[in-house]
Amino acid sequence: MRDLADKLGSHLRGDGSVSVTSVSSLQSATGESLVFVEDAKHLDAALKSPAAAVIAGQFAPATNAAPKPILISAQPRLTFARAAKLLRDPDRNRAIHLRAIVPASAKIGKNVAVGPRAILGEHVKVGDESTIGAGSVIGDNVTIGIHCRVDANVTVYPRTTLGDRVIVQAGAVLGSEGFGYVRDSATGCYEQFPQIGLLEIEDDVEIGANATIDRGALDVTRIGRGTKIDNLVHVGHNCRIGENVVIAAQTGLSGSAVVEDNVIIGGQVGIADHVRIEAGAILGAQSGIPTKKVIRGKGVVFWGTPARPIREYLKELAFLSRAAKKER
Amino acid sequence: MRDLADKLGSHLRGDGSVSVTSVSSLQSATGESLVFVEDAKHLDAALKSPAAAVIAGQFAPATNAAPKPILISAQPRLTFARAAKLLRDPDRNRAIHLRAIVPASAKIGKNVAVGPRAILGEHVKVGDESTIGAGSVIGDNVTIGIHCRVDANVTVYPRTTLGDRVIVQAGAVLGSEGFGYVRDSATGCYEQFPQIGLLEIEDDVEIGANATIDRGALDVTRIGRGTKIDNLVHVGHNCRIGENVVIAAQTGLSGSAVVEDNVIIGGQVGIADHVRIEAGAILGAQSGIPTKKVIRGKGVVFWGTPARPIREYLKELAFLSRAAKKER
Amino acid sequence: MRDLADKLGSHLRGDGSVSVTSVSSLQSATGESLVFVEDAKHLDAALKSPAAAVIAGQFAPATNAAPKPILISAQPRLTFARAAKLLRDPDRNRAIHLRAIVPASAKIGKNVAVGPRAILGEHVKVGDESTIGAGSVIGDNVTIGIHCRVDANVTVYPRTTLGDRVIVQAGAVLGSEGFGYVRDSATGCYEQFPQIGLLEIEDDVEIGANATIDRGALDVTRIGRGTKIDNLVHVGHNCRIGENVVIAAQTGLSGSAVVEDNVIIGGQVGIADHVRIEAGAILGAQSGIPTKKVIRGKGVVFWGTPARPIREYLKELAFLSRAAKKER
Repeated sequence: MRDLADKLGSHLRGDGSVSVTSVSSLQSATGESLVFVEDAKHLDAALKSPAAAVIAGQFAPATNAAPKPILISAQPRLTFARAAKLLRDPDRNRAIHLRAIVPASAKIGKNVAVGPRAILGEHVKVGDESTIGAGSVIGDNVTIGIHCRVDANVTVYPRTTLGDRVIVQAGAVLGSEGFGYVRDSATGCYEQFPQIGLLEIEDDVEIGANATIDRGALDVTRIGRGTKIDNLVHVGHNCRIGENVVIAAQTGLSGSAVVEDNVIIGGQVGIADHVRIEAGAILGAQSGIPTKKVIRGKGVVFWGTPARPIREYLKELAFLSRAAKKER
Repeated sequence: MRDLADKLGSHLRGDGSVSVTSVSSLQSATGESLVFVEDAKHLDAALKSPAAAVIAGQFAPATNAAPKPILISAQPRLTFARAAKLLRDPDRNRAIHLRAIVPASAKIGKNVAVGPRAILGEHVKVGDESTIGAGSVIGDNVTIGIHCRVDANVTVYPRTTLGDRVIVQAGAVLGSEGFGYVRDSATGCYEQFPQIGLLEIEDDVEIGANATIDRGALDVTRIGRGTKIDNLVHVGHNCRIGENVVIAAQTGLSGSAVVEDNVIIGGQVGIADHVRIEAGAILGAQSGIPTKKVIRGKGVVFWGTPARPIREYLKELAFLSRAAKKER
Repeated sequence: MRDLADKLGSHLRGDGSVSVTSVSSLQSATGESLVFVEDAKHLDAALKSPAAAVIAGQFAPATNAAPKPILISAQPRLTFARAAKLLRDPDRNRAIHLRAIVPASAKIGKNVAVGPRAILGEHVKVGDESTIGAGSVIGDNVTIGIHCRVDANVTVYPRTTLGDRVIVQAGAVLGSEGFGYVRDSATGCYEQFPQIGLLEIEDDVEIGANATIDRGALDVTRIGRGTKIDNLVHVGHNCRIGENVVIAAQTGLSGSAVVEDNVIIGGQVGIADHVRIEAGAILGAQSGIPTKKVIRGKGVVFWGTPARPIREYLKELAFLSRAAKKER
């Protein structure tokens, strides 16, 4: 624990010689587990659990009387998350698999893993310590930074760029062609508007399983640093997503939507084309933002379709419920 | 027909020597087809169709005067479904393809098929009569039961377990990391909360194409026996789904949702985190269940966002329509 | 430009010897770019941009005084889209990759490209000039027309047919088994209704990344000529989709829905089973169409769940907002 406490920069109360090998929940703690509690009322349960050690806040008693070591952190949950990373097994298979396809033109950094059946296109760059999962297809001229993790069966279209520490889970598709058509007024047929732009994914972005992110039509789709995107999310062409944005599962952004920094978007939200969500706004699950709408309000929660401030929306729901009952 | 009737445990009226080779709809019946009708009014059309034989209920006339054999069943549709299984072509290619990757540490049962380009990790177990489709990636320490069918390009993350007779269609992702982050209050950056739990899929579960099911964060995500999950459904980390639950396409369950036995969930439903759907409830398509809500009522249909009993919701819709018209 | 103008059948004003190598937006135009403007007010900016040449409408001045050549078109956006196609780099790698699996029974046309790790089943037909992407799995007896493009990691189930010029983006699944079950009233267990029909995709259909389209249960699922389907769309078994239909991302169609020609469907729309959307109707994003409903009205926009004409729906929303405020 002493070593871990030092790496985490946290103060340790109690026996520094105790050994932990993994993090766990209180319920599944074993004698080698590290657990955490965020408030005083759960501390006792943690101390009585089989866990080897506990991460807790300043609320933990300052004495050394506790039956197990306590790591003190201003943000116990965050420290727990960081401890989990430090305790993770190092990857055993950091090699380019014999059955991967890596052309001579590819530039591969140090200590890179490329899984079996993974296919790298011409002139692909993969930075140090990155891993490319089995069955993934990385198109020509794709650039992947350092410490990235691309899981199995991912497809990255040509010329897409990923920054450092980007995680892409299985089945995600990055850089596909956007949904833009021109209708021929003479024949009624649709013809594809060119979808020849780029997709740029910045550092520390994480993308969920089977999510799809389209390249720009003529210019760029951009996902800002630190943004987290859940499973089955769709991001259309030309979208600009800011930094530290959170987008929950199955949400869809149409073409040219702009989402500024620190926005939080619930699941199954629909954002129409050319919408702007300004910094710090919060969109409740399943809400819908119509075309070209601007959503403004740091920390304000919006809900419904069309989305309005949640207080308004809840009032409307309450009114409707009462009025419908009264009418009977 | 005699042989088929015996296997199905159904009573056959008429010529048992007639041969059928496949099931079909009334419209596309040929002289070797088996068709079914669920009510008396369609029986005549079935008897006049080119079909070789008909499955019908007790409503069919008890005489042997019908122009073709009739298989009598209390549940004609169910008997038809079972007949289809019995008539299905046996799989011709039950072998481990030369271009599959199966490490020496894998334990493979009898009569298992592994498709070309399929990749099994270390210590994978595959039970008798199961098939793993082309291009699928099965992670280390995954256990797959007997008579399972994993289709092409599926990804199963390490340590996931599948029971017996599980079907997973193409592109599905099982055991991905959940969407859980801790925000560092100092920097505003999100860091991943550990997603190191398990995914357990019980017997007879079926999972649609491109669906995604996350592993538990610290503990387990569980899909109960007999549950059917449609295409593009998302199930978040730590969800507990009961037995014989039906979840239609594009529905999403956030983390730690609990769905009890025999629940029916329509398409595009959104279920927030820590929701509990009690046994036998029915959620209409596109309905939304807010955080921590409990939905209770066996056989009761809920609709809308936030979901309410459908009778209430329909009254509200009717009131709103009338009131808006009146106001004009 | 002279040569391009001839191919496009457009009138060129100005210097025909100017050379263009690609299309671009106004913002990213270079000295070799072709740009377009749809109205007079943007023409000046286009003429002052670094672009080599401009596509414009009849509104462009008839004189030759402009500083760069102007291609005159009644539909400038359409002409731009077509120019982009003509200017696209020819594909360099039109070959069957050594590490593709193409059985002897497959019939492969002229100038076909099959990517590394692509797997073709027995008796697959691929027409002239088509490409099959890396890692795709094409089932037995699939037929693919001429000039098709199937991208990476696509799965096509056996017996599916694709017409000519069909585009399928990465991760899409075509011909999966539909979500149809019969519940055994004795045990409460669900058994699969046979899903043994076909999927037929007509000419000029385009299908987005990670979309899923189920085969018919007993008969056929059909996607009509010229229809465009966005990422993560789900089409259930037995659906009949007409010609030149547009379906935006994450929309879902349940089993046996019928969508007639020229319908436009926004994103995240939910269409229940046995619904009929008649020709030319327009469904706003996130709207929902209940079971067996018929939607009628060429050019009429429907919105909400259950979907109603948008004028009605907007009135209801306005009424509700006013009434809830008044009540306070």
